[in-house]
Amino acid sequence: MASPALARAAAARHTPAPMQRIAVTTRSRFEAVNVTRQVQEAVRGAGLQDGLVRLHCPHTTATLVVNEAADPDVVRDLLATYERLVPRDGDFRHAEGNSQAHVLSSLTGCGLTLPVEGGAVALGTWQGVFFVELDGPRRREVWIQCLASRG
Amino acid sequence: MASPALARAAAARHTPAPMQRIAVTTRSRFEAVNVTRQVQEAVRGAGLQDGLVRLHCPHTTATLVVNEAADPDVVRDLLATYERLVPRDGDFRHAEGNSQAHVLSSLTGCGLTLPVEGGAVALGTWQGVFFVELDGPRRREVWIQCLASRG
Amino acid sequence: MASPALARAAAARHTPAPMQRIAVTTRSRFEAVNVTRQVQEAVRGAGLQDGLVRLHCPHTTATLVVNEAADPDVVRDLLATYERLVPRDGDFRHAEGNSQAHVLSSLTGCGLTLPVEGGAVALGTWQGVFFVELDGPRRREVWIQCLASRG
Repeated sequence: MASPALARAAAARHTPAPMQRIAVTTRSRFEAVNVTRQVQEAVRGAGLQDGLVRLHCPHTTATLVVNEAADPDVVRDLLATYERLVPRDGDFRHAEGNSQAHVLSSLTGCGLTLPVEGGAVALGTWQGVFFVELDGPRRREVWIQCLASRG
Repeated sequence: MASPALARAAAARHTPAPMQRIAVTTRSRFEAVNVTRQVQEAVRGAGLQDGLVRLHCPHTTATLVVNEAADPDVVRDLLATYERLVPRDGDFRHAEGNSQAHVLSSLTGCGLTLPVEGGAVALGTWQGVFFVELDGPRRREVWIQCLASRG
Repeated sequence: MASPALARAAAARHTPAPMQRIAVTTRSRFEAVNVTRQVQEAVRGAGLQDGLVRLHCPHTTATLVVNEAADPDVVRDLLATYERLVPRDGDFRHAEGNSQAHVLSSLTGCGLTLPVEGGAVALGTWQGVFFVELDGPRRREVWIQCLASRG
């Protein structure tokens, strides 16, 4: 901790990073929007070098998933499976008619935790990050937090 | 880092927060218990201002989900879908007869990570946190950890 | 923060822990490999006392789950349910023929977050950590990160 530069770096590392909120506009009822680039920008903006980025979906009729981003048919096949496993007109009581979306949202979870290494989100070769709209079209948000790793 | 107050605040921020364990008593085989208030209290107790709270489900026949807390029919529809997707008397070999619960537990995951902002769990307008019993009634636990965000 | 020993301990606590990568070799198309011991070793190697360990699955045709490790039939029942819910020859367009694996990977998520207490991963009595191969046999990796808890 001798030099001012090191001290500044250490102090910077321990400064709380405020939560970021990004907007996602969807155009269909079911839709997967690739948000990988926005997540990378949020991590760069926070100055995080090594740790985790946490993405929270604040909506109960949408979700976030990681899957192959190279072939769009992979995500198309995922959405088709969602429709088959939890049909829109199932045995539901919720009066708003969007129980399908609520159920799928809980099945796949309310967010993602992703590794950050060397200042960037570290994903596998084929992995991309998708915001999955299940009851659109709507204006949506993703909440983003950065945490440095510590031994 | 000039003033003692700032130094104390910094030291407090870096003090490990011990894991908390809260008890949940379930009364049915399938049941969703709203634990949002207990999670908020745990975060306040840890003094966490900004970061993440992690909830771990230490049981292999229960799970934790986030979904709408306003209309109880949303969670009712989720549990009904669980019963339909993974029926109790499926093609199972596990001799204890609760494979349905084990499978659903793995499908929905062993815990939740939620954002904390300004000293409170930050959830979307409609979101609540539910402990989901899949093989009750039983006495259960949720393990709670707090981590401060760092840039 | 008076003594050098305390200062050293504090400094050690705030040192970033580099991400670890462990190899998993699978031998079947569908297979659950118990990796609990390797995860415990990674946590010990990082010197983490209290906090979280995050496991990332960098593959889009595999996943990670927690379930009962005592009776192997529990994991067998999980894999059988996967095959039934998302059959291999479903209504898929992805040309590589492994959409089943891609869909199941997204349904169960791209990783796990587990509590660490007293220098070890804290799991429930029956819980074990499994790497789940959905399109094997292959050589796979699990990426492991440690984060100390902070109030």
